[in-house]
Amino acid sequence: MGNEKQTFIKNPTFKWVGTRPVRPDGMDKVTGRAAFGADYQLPGMLVGEVVRSPHAHARIKSIDVSAARALAGVHAVVTAEDFPDLPSEIAAGGEAPINFRDVSHNVIARHKALYEGHAVAAVAATTAAIAAHAVALIKVNYEVLPHVIDVREAMRDNAPLLHDDLFTTGIDPQPTTPSNIAGRTQFVLGDIAQGFAEADIIVEREYTTQPVHQGYIEPHACAAAMGADGMATIWTSSQGHFMVREFCAKLLKVEIGQIRVIPAEIGGGFGGKTTVYLEPLAMALARQSGRPVKMVMTRSEVFRASGPTSGTHVWVKLGAKRNGTLTAGEMILKYQAGAYPGSPAMLGGMTGFAPYDLKHAKAVCYDVVSNRPKCAAYRAPGAPMAAFGVESALDEIAQQLGLDPLELRAMNAAKAGTRALYGPKFLEIGYAETLAAAKAHPHYSAPLGPNQGRGIASGFWFNIGGQSSAAVHVNEDGTAEVVTGNPDIGGSRASMAMMAAEVLGIDLAKVKPIIGDTAQIAYSFLTGGSRVTFATGMAVVEAAQDTVRQLRERAAKLWKVEFAEVEWRDGMAYCTRTTEEPRAPLSMAAIAHSCAKTGGPISGTASINASGAGPGFGTHLCDVEVDPETGAVKILRYTAIQDVGRAIHPSYVEGQLQGGAVQGIGWALNEEYIYDQQGRLLNPGFLDYRMPVASDLPMIDTVLVEVPNPGHPFGVRGVGEVPIVPPLAAVANAVSRAIGIRMTDLPLSPPRILATIDRAKRST
Amino acid sequence: MGNEKQTFIKNPTFKWVGTRPVRPDGMDKVTGRAAFGADYQLPGMLVGEVVRSPHAHARIKSIDVSAARALAGVHAVVTAEDFPDLPSEIAAGGEAPINFRDVSHNVIARHKALYEGHAVAAVAATTAAIAAHAVALIKVNYEVLPHVIDVREAMRDNAPLLHDDLFTTGIDPQPTTPSNIAGRTQFVLGDIAQGFAEADIIVEREYTTQPVHQGYIEPHACAAAMGADGMATIWTSSQGHFMVREFCAKLLKVEIGQIRVIPAEIGGGFGGKTTVYLEPLAMALARQSGRPVKMVMTRSEVFRASGPTSGTHVWVKLGAKRNGTLTAGEMILKYQAGAYPGSPAMLGGMTGFAPYDLKHAKAVCYDVVSNRPKCAAYRAPGAPMAAFGVESALDEIAQQLGLDPLELRAMNAAKAGTRALYGPKFLEIGYAETLAAAKAHPHYSAPLGPNQGRGIASGFWFNIGGQSSAAVHVNEDGTAEVVTGNPDIGGSRASMAMMAAEVLGIDLAKVKPIIGDTAQIAYSFLTGGSRVTFATGMAVVEAAQDTVRQLRERAAKLWKVEFAEVEWRDGMAYCTRTTEEPRAPLSMAAIAHSCAKTGGPISGTASINASGAGPGFGTHLCDVEVDPETGAVKILRYTAIQDVGRAIHPSYVEGQLQGGAVQGIGWALNEEYIYDQQGRLLNPGFLDYRMPVASDLPMIDTVLVEVPNPGHPFGVRGVGEVPIVPPLAAVANAVSRAIGIRMTDLPLSPPRILATIDRAKRST
Repeated sequence: MGNEKQTFIKNPTFKWVGTRPVRPDGMDKVTGRAAFGADYQLPGMLVGEVVRSPHAHARIKSIDVSAARALAGVHAVVTAEDFPDLPSEIAAGGEAPINFRDVSHNVIARHKALYEGHAVAAVAATTAAIAAHAVALIKVNYEVLPHVIDVREAMRDNAPLLHDDLFTTGIDPQPTTPSNIAGRTQFVLGDIAQGFAEADIIVEREYTTQPVHQGYIEPHACAAAMGADGMATIWTSSQGHFMVREFCAKLLKVEIGQIRVIPAEIGGGFGGKTTVYLEPLAMALARQSGRPVKMVMTRSEVFRASGPTSGTHVWVKLGAKRNGTLTAGEMILKYQAGAYPGSPAMLGGMTGFAPYDLKHAKAVCYDVVSNRPKCAAYRAPGAPMAAFGVESALDEIAQQLGLDPLELRAMNAAKAGTRALYGPKFLEIGYAETLAAAKAHPHYSAPLGPNQGRGIASGFWFNIGGQSSAAVHVNEDGTAEVVTGNPDIGGSRASMAMMAAEVLGIDLAKVKPIIGDTAQIAYSFLTGGSRVTFATGMAVVEAAQDTVRQLRERAAKLWKVEFAEVEWRDGMAYCTRTTEEPRAPLSMAAIAHSCAKTGGPISGTASINASGAGPGFGTHLCDVEVDPETGAVKILRYTAIQDVGRAIHPSYVEGQLQGGAVQGIGWALNEEYIYDQQGRLLNPGFLDYRMPVASDLPMIDTVLVEVPNPGHPFGVRGVGEVPIVPPLAAVANAVSRAIGIRMTDLPLSPPRILATIDRAKRST
Repeated sequence: MGNEKQTFIKNPTFKWVGTRPVRPDGMDKVTGRAAFGADYQLPGMLVGEVVRSPHAHARIKSIDVSAARALAGVHAVVTAEDFPDLPSEIAAGGEAPINFRDVSHNVIARHKALYEGHAVAAVAATTAAIAAHAVALIKVNYEVLPHVIDVREAMRDNAPLLHDDLFTTGIDPQPTTPSNIAGRTQFVLGDIAQGFAEADIIVEREYTTQPVHQGYIEPHACAAAMGADGMATIWTSSQGHFMVREFCAKLLKVEIGQIRVIPAEIGGGFGGKTTVYLEPLAMALARQSGRPVKMVMTRSEVFRASGPTSGTHVWVKLGAKRNGTLTAGEMILKYQAGAYPGSPAMLGGMTGFAPYDLKHAKAVCYDVVSNRPKCAAYRAPGAPMAAFGVESALDEIAQQLGLDPLELRAMNAAKAGTRALYGPKFLEIGYAETLAAAKAHPHYSAPLGPNQGRGIASGFWFNIGGQSSAAVHVNEDGTAEVVTGNPDIGGSRASMAMMAAEVLGIDLAKVKPIIGDTAQIAYSFLTGGSRVTFATGMAVVEAAQDTVRQLRERAAKLWKVEFAEVEWRDGMAYCTRTTEEPRAPLSMAAIAHSCAKTGGPISGTASINASGAGPGFGTHLCDVEVDPETGAVKILRYTAIQDVGRAIHPSYVEGQLQGGAVQGIGWALNEEYIYDQQGRLLNPGFLDYRMPVASDLPMIDTVLVEVPNPGHPFGVRGVGEVPIVPPLAAVANAVSRAIGIRMTDLPLSPPRILATIDRAKRST
């Protein structure tokens, strides 16, 4: 196998890998045949609605559901009492540890509501109108408590406490008084005191970013049915139906084997659909009513009750010699977790300095709870905020030293052998190549006009592997299904089919990609972490190789020759025995057609825990023009350059780069949560929460750099997360250069820029 | 593996095999959650209806669909022109060769309608009322032709010809004039002339049976959707979704990979759902309309247009010595195929003499077309009619020689080493054991009253193996899914889960059986031929063994010991290394929980072509009382005894024996198709086509004889088909003995018996 992988990497020509075929799910999606989370309709189905806390922080003294229950058409009402009270214990999660007690309490509040929108009860009724009426009839007796929204305020000693049993971890000795600081994590490399002592210049600044929502088009939606025998089926739009199955089993204390999850199409996730909100409620309502229950969030509920990424406060200190060599870096990261611990502060600390070869570095990461919805993963969780600080500081160093910002980065770029602050030494990476490509790109040498600025910034993401399964079922006519267990968000149907067709050597049109449900394909971890094309792709490659092995065995049987005498090329078996009459090659269809005679159906499978995900690096160029009258920023030109290892389907990869850039631009320029004094969200909708739309932006240019990942048979690296890491700094650096003032607080909205310009005018 | 199979057979104690747990699909079926063929509802779904020929035989001169097409709400109209005209060629089928041209023409008539009810067009409209209106608007210009219904009439030289390109096969030289005799097949063992010369007595008689319908409760029903990209999904109740996929691909000339078939629950099949009727029509209508189409047959359509088993004329000659030793047997079998070739005449010829050690035997089988719906498989296809003749003749020999009919059979019984007329020598079989069990049963020695008679008869079925696939997916908590590709008709969910739990050594409740769709599990041949518990069960056993191997590997990794040092017992891994500190046993759940660390998800699979199906034999005892005033037959007592190899779930096996006996009783006593002079069916409904209901029958007693099949790891033999083979003769022998007159023509309905009694009275 090892050798075959090497062969693939070195093979300069592919039949399918690197081409741009029409997407296999395209027709379904443009003609409306694809079924999303809200598209399932079952006989007798009820509508489920959620009762949500109107308070940012309140003790739930009692809940009276009697009037709701008595309403005709209401079939079920559930509160926290319908769920087991789980112990607080940290389970090994996929990307981060999971405390299922917190997940449970976030799904339905127990004792306290911790943010406006927190679910406190749920009802199921025959119609949406009756369900809404029932919601209104549920009387919750709240004792409103003082609340805290901001991360730094939440860290203060006298801040309102969310959890009286939360004690900061990572401090020795562990504190005995509760705190909103859930944890402190630190990473140290070398000796930063020595590093800063070696510096000729030091830049030290504080940066803030606002929580931003993933903004997927499809709100959370699911349907659940549960029989009297305790067997449940859930149809849901998620980033992982195996995750939904496990989480629901944990939260309802049933066996995993009792639940089957059918993956719906997913209308965007970006990390925000890697946990459960509605599914356990729908399941509990279905169990109580004995009928299927459908639940669909409104957009307002999505904003108020599903997780954005953290708002952050990041302090960065960077030292450099006069020639630009970085000597030391230090970061303190304070990340909002929302109502329960688990911000990606640690990931910020691990990633911020990763693009650079720093001998001395340190990061201290604080995970802080406050009265906001529990944060969820969002594309490269934690990394963009740290990169915003580091890449802004680098820009300042470049300005102060009069260096080209790309050259400053190039001279300090991490490469194979560089030890990262978070531990490992890099193998083959392509960061320097992205810098070189940026330098060579016409964008970088294009002239700029008045009020215009060019920002550059880079970004890093680990990319992960993990557990995936795949099966290749060969049909009687030589066509094949390729089954995997990952929802297709970024085009994995296409890439899985292409990799399978490449290994099998057959026409792509003969390969049908299928997303298997939890009962029909073996376990597969989330679609997230930029892992699917890498890890699930590796499972597909191995399953296809297993299939080729079987096809060769069958050909050997038909020819009565040894296995080693059968070669597989271009979807055909060739016999290499030369001592007898030559045997005509056998097509996959011919071998499939006679499989009954040679042992039965041909089906290759693989279940793996993939390691060797290749770290990803990107460099973005951004030109802006700032209107000095209004403070409005116009993105003039944007180029995203990234080492993608190997682009299986370049159009999809370019789409990932474009999408990440656009989301990062929104984060940099406009998106923020606006709360009133009572801790109520004032802008829970796309009219007031301003995401960039097509008319706001130029076409995002992309450059794919391919430094193959030696850990994958085709050299694939994850690509989905890196592109959201650089934009915050790229935009801020561009704006800072355009207006001549360093901008450190996001979003760079017109009022803020105007105020900054005015303040600067006044002080000069 | 071979050794392990032996171990299973010899192991006298099982944890699950042989027990009677609650069926896993029971709750779904009694609460209505199970989705049958007609239970699927899709957005925009149309209703499909079929235009059927009112004539038994007619040339289709033209079809004018313009008025139907113009009707508001009609979205598609198809005729044979919408299907490719396939070449006539015999493809290797599963149980019998298949001519897809004939299948296609049977699904929708091309040029000629060959029976009343033959589909000639189909429509799809927004409502059933509009569809019915559209059906009425379709103008078919027929030229009515002379028709033929009866098998012997159809064989005459001057009979109306159904196909002018049908020439009898199996005759040397092949005739050059067309005929309704599609084929002649002959089996010869020894020298019958010599055999009959050795006989002291010879019985020679003609027997007739009527076509009978499988009478499944659920009519044929399906839904189909097809996208503009040519990708189709079909939801259907069938005995094999892989069969539906292949047949639809063939009939619509698309690739197999373009079609996904989702198996619905099936409300009975008994062989009648091993082909397609509606599915290709629904698919063509869906393709034309761009919308999903649902089609459900009425009961009348089921009778008029789906396949019963053949009506037959069987001539039997049997010779014996005075002591009862059989010296020779000869049969001529004439079986109706319906409108297209393919009756099970050959299977009748192969099975009729199979229970007996005959040195000299011969069977000549004729497959004959006539203007009736094309016959379909029905439980032990072809065997009951041949057994009716042979077992009746044996009863006469016993009577003439004054022998106990069980002893006559016992002294001639086939055993291990006996060569059957159809070729093979039997391995371990349990026919003699069923005779001994019958002899010992209290039923056999119970007294009889006036007008009462006791019939005994035996029966044989091959049972088959074939291609099956299975997967065992181990979940994170040690529960598991067992996925197979066969619709569960006779309880295979239960037996698959039990066999998996037995091999895994875990609690049955931890194992969830799943019927995979065509895209999610590898190819599996039909649920039919009494093959599923045997062949698919073998795949499940192998997949579970593969899983145990993986579990042992993982335990070895966790313990850092050799694979051989890990034993698997009772769902736990035990370490046999004694040189170090003892290692606590690891449960399946513990190993599953840590699978990421040891290589990824644990999932065992198997795809096999199972051979070694054990032949099955049964002996039935039947007591009747005949009312001499009315001719009505009352079944007083009935005992079905059968060698089942090993009963995985004895209740289901007993149910198979009971169900087979009841269907055979209906065939013997009441069921028949009544045609008018124009060849139109007069009794297409359960009111006039009289199947036995519970109140007609006593509880059918059963005795399970277990002579393990050496070809299966648990000793399983197929059990579903044997029990319909003896009843025709058992009932007829009982009636013959009760009234003292040999009855040779079925059904033994009151008018026929009364007429026989009256005729006998008149002649004495």
